[in-house]
Amino acid sequence: MATSTPPVLALRAVGSFHVGGRAHVLQGLPVEQVRLAVGGPARPVDPNGTHISGQMYVQYFLQQRPCSPWPIVLWHGGGMTGANWESTPDGRSGWLQRLLALGHDVYVCDAVERGRAGWSRWPDIYAQPPLFRSLEEGWDMFRIGPPMARFAPGGPVHPGQQFPAEAFEAFAAQWVPRWAGHEDLTLDAYTQLLARIGPCVVVAHSQGGGMALSMALRQPQALRAVVALEPSGAPVQPQAGPGAPPRLVVWGDRVQAHPVWRAYRERVQAHVQDLQAQGVQADTLDLPAQGVHGNSHFLMLDRNSDLVLDHVLQWLGPFLSDPSQETLT
Amino acid sequence: MATSTPPVLALRAVGSFHVGGRAHVLQGLPVEQVRLAVGGPARPVDPNGTHISGQMYVQYFLQQRPCSPWPIVLWHGGGMTGANWESTPDGRSGWLQRLLALGHDVYVCDAVERGRAGWSRWPDIYAQPPLFRSLEEGWDMFRIGPPMARFAPGGPVHPGQQFPAEAFEAFAAQWVPRWAGHEDLTLDAYTQLLARIGPCVVVAHSQGGGMALSMALRQPQALRAVVALEPSGAPVQPQAGPGAPPRLVVWGDRVQAHPVWRAYRERVQAHVQDLQAQGVQADTLDLPAQGVHGNSHFLMLDRNSDLVLDHVLQWLGPFLSDPSQETLT
Repeated sequence: MATSTPPVLALRAVGSFHVGGRAHVLQGLPVEQVRLAVGGPARPVDPNGTHISGQMYVQYFLQQRPCSPWPIVLWHGGGMTGANWESTPDGRSGWLQRLLALGHDVYVCDAVERGRAGWSRWPDIYAQPPLFRSLEEGWDMFRIGPPMARFAPGGPVHPGQQFPAEAFEAFAAQWVPRWAGHEDLTLDAYTQLLARIGPCVVVAHSQGGGMALSMALRQPQALRAVVALEPSGAPVQPQAGPGAPPRLVVWGDRVQAHPVWRAYRERVQAHVQDLQAQGVQADTLDLPAQGVHGNSHFLMLDRNSDLVLDHVLQWLGPFLSDPSQETLT
Repeated sequence: MATSTPPVLALRAVGSFHVGGRAHVLQGLPVEQVRLAVGGPARPVDPNGTHISGQMYVQYFLQQRPCSPWPIVLWHGGGMTGANWESTPDGRSGWLQRLLALGHDVYVCDAVERGRAGWSRWPDIYAQPPLFRSLEEGWDMFRIGPPMARFAPGGPVHPGQQFPAEAFEAFAAQWVPRWAGHEDLTLDAYTQLLARIGPCVVVAHSQGGGMALSMALRQPQALRAVVALEPSGAPVQPQAGPGAPPRLVVWGDRVQAHPVWRAYRERVQAHVQDLQAQGVQADTLDLPAQGVHGNSHFLMLDRNSDLVLDHVLQWLGPFLSDPSQETLT
């Protein structure tokens, strides 16, 4: 086609909801005097009383004519929000836009205590204080480049790096604090999400990938397929049971060279092998082994993010088709 | 028309970005050992280093054929996020959907330290701890019903209440913590947002309404019009200068009967009168005086939210039209 007009999204609905959470009652905390509004007077703020905690946020984009009966549900990783899927730090479209342009119904999640999900007091409701990730830690842990004692824009990156490292500070603007030890809380909210939206495909990154591999054991009937992008964990000695959905695990470059990621991958690989021994489809896409080099931990933000998504969609293809349509052909 | 098919949104783009923020370097904080991933080992988490703080999150929905050259930008209030505009607690469509169905380009913001904007450590970066609002405080402050010592679903509401009080816990799931004293930080990020997106109309609620009235003084050329829904503050003794955009302030019911809101409104009214004395268009829409009764502080979530938006759009009409189109007719 000779036109450069971008495709128009024909959506029947965009919107959001919160799911999960329950009431907690706090008592005995001191009342503070705080000025809350521009030019306004101080007024008492009493934290005692009822607070909702444990909920998560879900935004949906539903097509006028979805290309699959099964929506794709996007779960972010630790210290992140659904914004990870919406844009890349260097301003390209994210996987959300690509999936929408292809005609998929998409749900984008902010897990418990991340982004629009909100978060709660500690030690009154949460047991621990939050964790804040520095740019230096991210630079190393996301395998952008060799460790830096102090972050400096333009610092050295790994050879052939696909992450747009020049936009690393813009990327860090997407990060949010996180808590450790909230896996069950988060999985409970995800379980309620799946009960609400019905069967779907989950594409999940990092910590979210570990959650998705757990959910495939907890709620196999709710999942048509699971794609775990560089999962940072997986349940040990999984027992899949009947109706287990197919899984794909995807790895970028230099995983073996990083001690933390090598250990994470070994654990995930044991999980995959345990599933395979039970006859469950559990595939691994090792991008460097396929000739795709230089990917960071953030496969969906790397310069070749479209190519990585192509690989994922190629694997997902059989699980996204409509069985009623198959019967007709 | 005999069809019940919902209108299809024809969008040329949906996406998001972060704007504002700067790097802060932390030093001398203790390193912790934390298990971050499902089934993973504990590993050191070092909070020292560089952190980005002060950014905000913006999501955009751009029409294939926008009905106005000026996008509408939605700013939430204190302890809230952009989710306020996306749905009502009882599951109806929010103002976002209504504005999109009418053909407006819309930007939805999460202000600094709210939702997907992320937030920062204290006292290392922020000076103070966060504030958490109880359901009991919200029930009174949002003028849902008489104060309750302890929240209970189904508690008494003000006569003729328009807020869907049966969904108050679902509404509280949207709330997020907030900080006092961050007005300048937030206004700085909003200033960068306006510089990035160009002239627009801001529709803002509560604390955001106070911010919008401040911004109309700071950046008059960036704003075609400002609608402040129950602003919880306004600058004292405003000096509008040339090119001041028109303002509309909207009030729900029982403002005078609530001591905090009566005081807020008096301050805003003084601001409005100061502007009028300078020849600036500064209008007030008092809904009860127009025969619209029972509105809570959350006008855009009340059962008559569509009607309230009709009033707002009627006022906005002249400021949303395309001057080049006017020349042609």
